Amino acid sequence: MFTNKFQALLIAAATLLLAGCAAPVLRGTGDLGVVIERATGSVQIVDTSQLVSLSSVKGLGDLSHASLVYSRDGRYAYVFGRDGGLTKVDLLRGVIALRVMQAGNSIGGAISQDGKLIAAQNYTPGGVKVFSAETLELVADVPSGYGDAGLRAKVVGLADAPGNRFVWSLFEAGEIWVGDFSNPAKPAIQKFKNIGNQPYDGLITPDGRYYLAGLFGEDGMALVDLWHPEQGARRILNGYGKGEEKLPVFKMPHLRGWAVAGRYAYVPAIGRHEVLVLDMQTWLEAGRIKVAGQPVFVIARPDGRQVWVNFAFPDNANVDVIDVEQRAVVKQLAPGKAVLHMEFTPRGESVWISARDDNRVVVYDTASFAQRAVLPAESPSGIFFTHRAARTGF
Amino acid sequence: MFTNKFQALLIAAATLLLAGCAAPVLRGTGDLGVVIERATGSVQIVDTSQLVSLSSVKGLGDLSHASLVYSRDGRYAYVFGRDGGLTKVDLLRGVIALRVMQAGNSIGGAISQDGKLIAAQNYTPGGVKVFSAETLELVADVPSGYGDAGLRAKVVGLADAPGNRFVWSLFEAGEIWVGDFSNPAKPAIQKFKNIGNQPYDGLITPDGRYYLAGLFGEDGMALVDLWHPEQGARRILNGYGKGEEKLPVFKMPHLRGWAVAGRYAYVPAIGRHEVLVLDMQTWLEAGRIKVAGQPVFVIARPDGRQVWVNFAFPDNANVDVIDVEQRAVVKQLAPGKAVLHMEFTPRGESVWISARDDNRVVVYDTASFAQRAVLPAESPSGIFFTHRAARTGF
Repeated sequence: MFTNKFQALLIAAATLLLAGCAAPVLRGTGDLGVVIERATGSVQIVDTSQLVSLSSVKGLGDLSHASLVYSRDGRYAYVFGRDGGLTKVDLLRGVIALRVMQAGNSIGGAISQDGKLIAAQNYTPGGVKVFSAETLELVADVPSGYGDAGLRAKVVGLADAPGNRFVWSLFEAGEIWVGDFSNPAKPAIQKFKNIGNQPYDGLITPDGRYYLAGLFGEDGMALVDLWHPEQGARRILNGYGKGEEKLPVFKMPHLRGWAVAGRYAYVPAIGRHEVLVLDMQTWLEAGRIKVAGQPVFVIARPDGRQVWVNFAFPDNANVDVIDVEQRAVVKQLAPGKAVLHMEFTPRGESVWISARDDNRVVVYDTASFAQRAVLPAESPSGIFFTHRAARTGF
Repeated sequence: MFTNKFQALLIAAATLLLAGCAAPVLRGTGDLGVVIERATGSVQIVDTSQLVSLSSVKGLGDLSHASLVYSRDGRYAYVFGRDGGLTKVDLLRGVIALRVMQAGNSIGGAISQDGKLIAAQNYTPGGVKVFSAETLELVADVPSGYGDAGLRAKVVGLADAPGNRFVWSLFEAGEIWVGDFSNPAKPAIQKFKNIGNQPYDGLITPDGRYYLAGLFGEDGMALVDLWHPEQGARRILNGYGKGEEKLPVFKMPHLRGWAVAGRYAYVPAIGRHEVLVLDMQTWLEAGRIKVAGQPVFVIARPDGRQVWVNFAFPDNANVDVIDVEQRAVVKQLAPGKAVLHMEFTPRGESVWISARDDNRVVVYDTASFAQRAVLPAESPSGIFFTHRAARTGF
């Protein structure tokens, strides 16, 4: 009897060990990524070396317009759902580690320079909430109040900056706020007012110095030099569509993926079939490139020699590849119906493209444009690789 | 008897499982790093989130002047020893995964854009050898023959470039070679001859476009635009020390860590107590910054706002911090005796500095300059963090 019990215990122990040990494979996280499946509230965890899907994680809520950031170690993805859900996904175990509902309507987030703070930008209730990256406990709440009527603005264009700062824009208020969360219990907020009409998204340059907000209510952009906040916000690209008839806008472009290559930034023109070339030394327009439709994402290959562009309806089955020296489209690709996002591998040899309505992700070689792989996915949208953890502004 | 055997088997199985399972902790690799301990032929594996050493791996041979590159997934470090040893270290298990002796005298290496090829640059026998990153099997051998006398040059300045290329310089020959290893069995080698006297090291710009070789035999540098190899090699910074008396050189500066921040590169002047500012748009000298000694490493903080400099003997207990806007040293630090290397965390909040003769690694906050941690190490030299896997030219 004792022997049997002992045997049973040993078998149980061995089974437990096998279960606890065999499931998560010991592996590096530098070549992992996540594909958002917006229709099913799930994400796929993918391997960019083997070009395969490793696992699927369900139960993340409404993932339309979802984005994510990575923990400092590359193991966890913090997924910001449109419904205000914030989910910490363990890439190695393929499970949800933590999940909180933090707002009613949210539009993305960022992670602090030191990796300790997760900030969510919210439409409803308007503001920025900051959480412990480890526990998802709320550590700071900054409502986006403006004016004298007790109103709160939608927060857009949230970005991380050096010095454990976050920067964001207030849509209805026309303001840019810079929050220093070095002491999360007492964030220091600096407000730039009257920066322009309806900032709809923003980005920070890869060096973390310049924050730019795109303006929906007028032609132009707002610029803050974070090395010199005392200079205030500047207006750039004023009237870049002046004199031309406005086109209907089918989908707002995304600024966070904006391409910075050498001294130039490549900017989606709102409503026009053009990519604007912005000289980052003068902050003047340096040229325009004709493309197949209204650009949504304009993203540089990591070496800056190409810029890839996807489009709003009805041109959203196309992807244009711009050669930056020629300032012209040199290749057109058709990855599938409703291309929503593109993500380059860290050193740029491949790009992964989601085609929502064909339920697939297509991987291209960026030198030969050959298809390297096709992965099935349920209405895939955003694709995010773990090297983002090591970058500012991603 | 059967029961006892069965029990014994179960115990053995459980023990094996415990040993195989408990030892390596499931964790991300994005915040790992390696510190070279040159005197003992060992490396320490460190955690840049917790600021601790996780393990020590011995048996790597002669690690004077050792460097390393990381596998695409961040799990393995490929350590290039001075004695020609090439060691693949498993950071998660803290053990040597593979090791080969590939040359008699070696000076570093690089990893291809796709992560599949490891290239070693060798003094003896002179040339570049290329290995499978998975197995360390030799897949290509390119001797550095030059001239008509059957001589082989020392290979220096090896760097990776987009398109699975490697670029390197031949010291005695005054040549730069570009090797395309897209088909490793048949590498395509392009040679640039008469590039200048005694190239002693090289670097590639972060975008992978420009390869620069420093010249020891004359004042100046050689430049190849890899987007336009048909233009050949150019000479830049000609005679930057002209008319001044040459100083004795106590230690050759390292070019691979050269700082590129915005449009400027910060270059160690050979033998002079100066850092040169190089305008990367005109390739002309744009200024000089006085520093405490002969610079060895000149490295930009990831946001490009500071450049950190260490020095040759007798000033090698100092580190100078340059503010790039002021073009002046704004802080001097004394981390310990014989500072050999500095490595910034990926997003730049901290820097790790090795002080060989004080047997320690000191971690600083780069905003406040406060010491965050001191880690004991045996004669530490190079420090390398895993985010290098995701970058070109590291």
